[in-house]
Amino acid sequence: MDAPATDYVTYSCVDSIATITFNRPEKLNALLPDMIHTYSDLLVFADQDPQVRAIVVTGAGRGFCSGADLSVLGTDPELVQGFLKGQSHATVPGKVLHLGTPVITAINGPAAGLGFVIAISADFRFVHSDATLSTTFARLGLIAEYGVAWLLPRLIGLGAATDLLLTGRTIDGITAKELGLVNGVSNDPLADAYSCAYELATFCSPASIAVIKAQIMKAQMAGFNESADDAFIEMGHAFERPDLHAALKGKANKTAPEFPNNASGQ
Amino acid sequence: MDAPATDYVTYSCVDSIATITFNRPEKLNALLPDMIHTYSDLLVFADQDPQVRAIVVTGAGRGFCSGADLSVLGTDPELVQGFLKGQSHATVPGKVLHLGTPVITAINGPAAGLGFVIAISADFRFVHSDATLSTTFARLGLIAEYGVAWLLPRLIGLGAATDLLLTGRTIDGITAKELGLVNGVSNDPLADAYSCAYELATFCSPASIAVIKAQIMKAQMAGFNESADDAFIEMGHAFERPDLHAALKGKANKTAPEFPNNASGQ
Amino acid sequence: MDAPATDYVTYSCVDSIATITFNRPEKLNALLPDMIHTYSDLLVFADQDPQVRAIVVTGAGRGFCSGADLSVLGTDPELVQGFLKGQSHATVPGKVLHLGTPVITAINGPAAGLGFVIAISADFRFVHSDATLSTTFARLGLIAEYGVAWLLPRLIGLGAATDLLLTGRTIDGITAKELGLVNGVSNDPLADAYSCAYELATFCSPASIAVIKAQIMKAQMAGFNESADDAFIEMGHAFERPDLHAALKGKANKTAPEFPNNASGQ
Repeated sequence: MDAPATDYVTYSCVDSIATITFNRPEKLNALLPDMIHTYSDLLVFADQDPQVRAIVVTGAGRGFCSGADLSVLGTDPELVQGFLKGQSHATVPGKVLHLGTPVITAINGPAAGLGFVIAISADFRFVHSDATLSTTFARLGLIAEYGVAWLLPRLIGLGAATDLLLTGRTIDGITAKELGLVNGVSNDPLADAYSCAYELATFCSPASIAVIKAQIMKAQMAGFNESADDAFIEMGHAFERPDLHAALKGKANKTAPEFPNNASGQ
Repeated sequence: MDAPATDYVTYSCVDSIATITFNRPEKLNALLPDMIHTYSDLLVFADQDPQVRAIVVTGAGRGFCSGADLSVLGTDPELVQGFLKGQSHATVPGKVLHLGTPVITAINGPAAGLGFVIAISADFRFVHSDATLSTTFARLGLIAEYGVAWLLPRLIGLGAATDLLLTGRTIDGITAKELGLVNGVSNDPLADAYSCAYELATFCSPASIAVIKAQIMKAQMAGFNESADDAFIEMGHAFERPDLHAALKGKANKTAPEFPNNASGQ
Repeated sequence: MDAPATDYVTYSCVDSIATITFNRPEKLNALLPDMIHTYSDLLVFADQDPQVRAIVVTGAGRGFCSGADLSVLGTDPELVQGFLKGQSHATVPGKVLHLGTPVITAINGPAAGLGFVIAISADFRFVHSDATLSTTFARLGLIAEYGVAWLLPRLIGLGAATDLLLTGRTIDGITAKELGLVNGVSNDPLADAYSCAYELATFCSPASIAVIKAQIMKAQMAGFNESADDAFIEMGHAFERPDLHAALKGKANKTAPEFPNNASGQ
């Protein structure tokens, strides 16, 4: 089955690492409504491929994603509705939080508005030191879109999140790292992203990653006792999977562990 | 209508920015019970004035607010009851979290106990590098008052919050910045506060700010999916307000956007 | 009554400060199932002793705790079950979050897997700059055990927690401090831990500490208004305890306050 990619959102997969690229570089990868759905579909496609152990997301050209295309928002009521129609939490960018496969963004350039939300809605975020990031919404008379009011305070704390959301001000990659918004800042975030993807694909159990991601999300709304009790149940399941023995065998042989692919996806 | 100010808590408003000042400088602005109610009333007064786009809170003299007046706590049972009587989450300092108008504290000097809580219960916090901050409660045999046990971990993480609450130790402005407790540290936090207020008043939609503040608070207790779904509803409302067009017009004309005042207050 | 200690988990108490030591140094204090129960029992024992005002936890030799003994996990199904049998959130390490007595870990060396969880499940954490810390679970095909998926994001934010849990990578003490995972890093974390314990035991009300710890935990799952309203109730109780007067008397006499022990434990 072919990936449901388009000219504007492309897909490739090499050695168990998938790459999704926003590809409208003449507009800094500004989004048209269809591009959001394509992105969402490609995430699901990659997640359901048991060969894929990590998903890298980046932008073509000098931008990551400048958000919803402002010229559309200003002039075309039908396309404006396209940003609303058929959308829910089940579409991007929050979807990545619920995938079993880890998602890594390489924020190579400007990320604004919805592009900002996509940039931070990942398990790992790497940014170019010169990239500019901005929530933008308050400066456009808009609101905290796509669950960013939920996610941002949990990434950088309530104070810094309130700052970025209320002012809509622009920060660079270095400030993003200081705030804890990204995992790393450098002049080659795509290389950082692949390095992280490679580490996950080589050393970490896909089954463990899928379970731990779900545990983290569930624990955001659960009490400690409930989370700990759930962990004992998951611990029992983990002891029944072949992964622990694969890990111990790798350790004994001083080789990378041969973890099975995560058959189910999520 | 006049502001419900007193000699001990004063009010002024210039160019859409209101200022509330704790004004009992001979006692480092230590609080008597009435001052808490005055502060609360002034916040509501400012919030309900559609002209007001930001509220700055500071202290007169060399202190911000040294907390409940200890001489009162030690000697006057009736005044002690005054700190309890008629108080609830609907009074300060948590009230600021529920206002539609952004609140900015300029922590010019010592902030302790309830003064610490008032200092941090804002949307933005700017501190003097020499200012001292202390929760103090555990050193007085008291408890985490006025919702600070809720707010502090969300600002600086569970570990640093537990430290400051259990030890009651004193930190300076520079440490406060390192912990992420404040947005900025300098030798002129009042200037920083006004600069932030000016930025919000000039570039950010009052309607957006009110909605985003409510989204952030609601998202603290909601799951991601619920937050994201709410955001789609708010997005629909935002597209119906004149603010987006005001923003796009300002962009086209290279002028500050002419956002309407937030008629409702909150 | 004697402390329920063993050769592998020892106990001592000097001047109101209890010390629990993992003592299997030839295995970097790797855990056998019984050791977890002993640790849990010792925490409760210390907490119920009204003389004890702080509990320090550390490891003998050059390690803190290297986690569940891997040789056992690999070879002995009965011992594997021992890690599951009779365990719940009521056993360690989450138990420390519910004690009325403050717990301080001195992470003197490697902390991995369950040892990592024990290291971070404390009210205060001090680490050696050379100590290595690793969640490890994903590299062993295991899951986020013992409530660490709940605790870690609340300590260092969702992004850094996801990183450490999904990659299972190893960080040193200095990185742990940069991430906000620990309160302090130095070449003598045990001295730091005792210094913190001494400060708590000398200057802070045991009753205040017990109440504030419970407030912090409860506030993780409560809304702001509920937390603030609870605080007013606890404030009323605090005014009825002798602790405030002990504090004010100490202040007046320039001596350490003579706070009563916390009779109830928790």
